[in-house]
Amino acid sequence: MNRQELIQQVKGKKNYLCIGLDTDINKLPKHLHASEQAVFEFNKAIIDATKDFCVSYKINTAFYEAMGIKGWEALEQTVDYIPATHFKIADAKRGDIGNTSAQYAKTFFEVYNFDAVTVAPYMGEDSVRPFLEYENKWTIVLGLTSNKGSEDFQQLVVRTESEEFLSELTPGHHHKQQYLYEKVMQQMAGWGTPENLMFVVGATKAEQLQQIRKAYPEHFFLVPGVGSQGGSLAEVSRAALHADGGLLVNVSRAIIYAGTGERFAEDAKTIAEQYHDEMNSLFEEASLAS
Amino acid sequence: MNRQELIQQVKGKKNYLCIGLDTDINKLPKHLHASEQAVFEFNKAIIDATKDFCVSYKINTAFYEAMGIKGWEALEQTVDYIPATHFKIADAKRGDIGNTSAQYAKTFFEVYNFDAVTVAPYMGEDSVRPFLEYENKWTIVLGLTSNKGSEDFQQLVVRTESEEFLSELTPGHHHKQQYLYEKVMQQMAGWGTPENLMFVVGATKAEQLQQIRKAYPEHFFLVPGVGSQGGSLAEVSRAALHADGGLLVNVSRAIIYAGTGERFAEDAKTIAEQYHDEMNSLFEEASLAS
Repeated sequence: MNRQELIQQVKGKKNYLCIGLDTDINKLPKHLHASEQAVFEFNKAIIDATKDFCVSYKINTAFYEAMGIKGWEALEQTVDYIPATHFKIADAKRGDIGNTSAQYAKTFFEVYNFDAVTVAPYMGEDSVRPFLEYENKWTIVLGLTSNKGSEDFQQLVVRTESEEFLSELTPGHHHKQQYLYEKVMQQMAGWGTPENLMFVVGATKAEQLQQIRKAYPEHFFLVPGVGSQGGSLAEVSRAALHADGGLLVNVSRAIIYAGTGERFAEDAKTIAEQYHDEMNSLFEEASLAS
Repeated sequence: MNRQELIQQVKGKKNYLCIGLDTDINKLPKHLHASEQAVFEFNKAIIDATKDFCVSYKINTAFYEAMGIKGWEALEQTVDYIPATHFKIADAKRGDIGNTSAQYAKTFFEVYNFDAVTVAPYMGEDSVRPFLEYENKWTIVLGLTSNKGSEDFQQLVVRTESEEFLSELTPGHHHKQQYLYEKVMQQMAGWGTPENLMFVVGATKAEQLQQIRKAYPEHFFLVPGVGSQGGSLAEVSRAALHADGGLLVNVSRAIIYAGTGERFAEDAKTIAEQYHDEMNSLFEEASLAS
C-alpha cells in the first residue's frame, strides 16, 4: 500500500486505529482451547468484528514465534485473512548487517504479504537500507518507544559535530541539545522518505510527540502505548494528528482481550467502535485546526 | 550451558571458534537442490564435518525465516542436531517491551533449545530483563558491531551526568569521552553478570576490542566479522583472548561456503581445521602471556 492509498483509507474513514494482534495462546477464551487452529480462529473473529472500525492490523511476531511452527502457520493465515484495504504491519523489531537485513526484508515483504515492518536502528544505515529498497513497502523505525527503558539510551544527549565545533570556539556555549532518538530520526529521514519510512513514537510521550511532529510534518508515526500502557488518545492526537492523518495509533490488549468469554469478538468490537468514534471527533478537530 | 562448562569446552579444546550457519537456500551445492530438506541436510553435513574443530554454532535466524515455515522446520532440526557439547546461539537480534521480550526469550530458550540469543539494546532495561531471567541461558547484547553502520549511532559521543556536572563547574574542561556503545555495555553489565551476559564486539574493531576487554575482563565476547567481513583472527585474539578464553569468534560464509561442489563439507572442514590450528597457537600465546 502506497502513501496515497493509506491517506485515502485514513481520511475516508476519519480513522487511524491499528489493532495489535498480540495473540497469546494462554489468554484465549476457553471455548477455543480445543481447536487445532485456536489462534487463527481468534484472530479471524477479531478481524471480522473490528475491520469496519480500524484501518490497520499489527501482528506482534514474538507471540507467534513463541508457539513454534504452529505459530508461523497462524501468522501466515492471519496476514492472508486481513482485507486488502487494511495496512498490514509486522511488528518484528528486526535489524542486522546488510545481507541479513535483506533476508528479513524478504521474509516480511515477500514470503508474508506485509505492507510494513518495524526495524531497530542500533546497527545503522546498512541495516535499514535493504528494507527501504522495496517499492510500496514501509520501514517503521523505532524512534522514541513507549516503555520505561526508552530513558536508558534513546533519551541520552548525544554530541553533534556542530556542537563540538561551537564548544571549541566558545567554551561554555549553550545550544539546543539533541537526544539519541532525535539523531536516529534525523539520520533515518535522510535515508528514507515519507513514502517509505515511518517512526515509532510512544503514546506515553505526548510532549515529545508534538516536537517530533514539528520536525517531521510529512511522516506517518506508528504510536503504540494507548490502552493498557496508559497513553491518552486525545493527547496523542492533539500533539500529532493533521488533516491527512499522519498517525496510526495502535491498541492491542485493550481491544483483543476486552472480553474473555464466548462473546469476546463482540466485546472487542464495542471497544474498537469507541476508539473509532473518538477518532472521528478528533479527526474533525484536527481538520478544522489546519 | 553455564559459564564453567563453556570455559571447560574452550580451554579443553584451546578453541573458541563459533561456526555461523547462515544457510542460504540459494547458495547450496547443486546436488542438494532436489532434496525436500536441503537446508537441514547441508547443516547436518557441515556439523558432522566441523564439530571437532569448533565449540559453538550460531544460527542466523533471518536466513531461516526467509524460507517461511520450512525454514523454521530446518532451524528446529538443526538446533536439535547440534551436539550437547557445543554452545548454541540464536543470532536473532530481538528486543521489545517487556511482555514481548518475554515471548522472544521463551521462543529461543524453551521452544528451541538454544543456550544464547543476541539482543538489540535500543529499548533499554525492560527489553533485556526477560532474557536475563533464565538460568544457565545467555543474553548476547549488541555492543559495537562489525558493519559500517556501527559508526552511525553506536559511535556517537553521549553526554554523561558527571560530564554535565563538570562542564558547569569548569567550562571548557576536557575529560574522557563516552561512546554510546560504551554506555550500553556499562548499563548492561549492571543488569546482567558474566554468568548470563555476553557482548557482541565486531572483529573489524581490534583497537576498541582491547579497550573493551580492559573494561570487562570477565565477560565473554561474541566476535563476528572474521573471514568474509575482513577482520583478523590474530588481531582479535591478541586484543581480547585470555587464559579462560573469554571469546567466541564467529566465522560463517568463509567456512560453510568454502566449497560449492559435492565435497562442500570436506572443504568446510579444511577451513575450520585451519581456524582451529591457528586458535590453538593463539591460545598458547595468551596462556603464556597471562
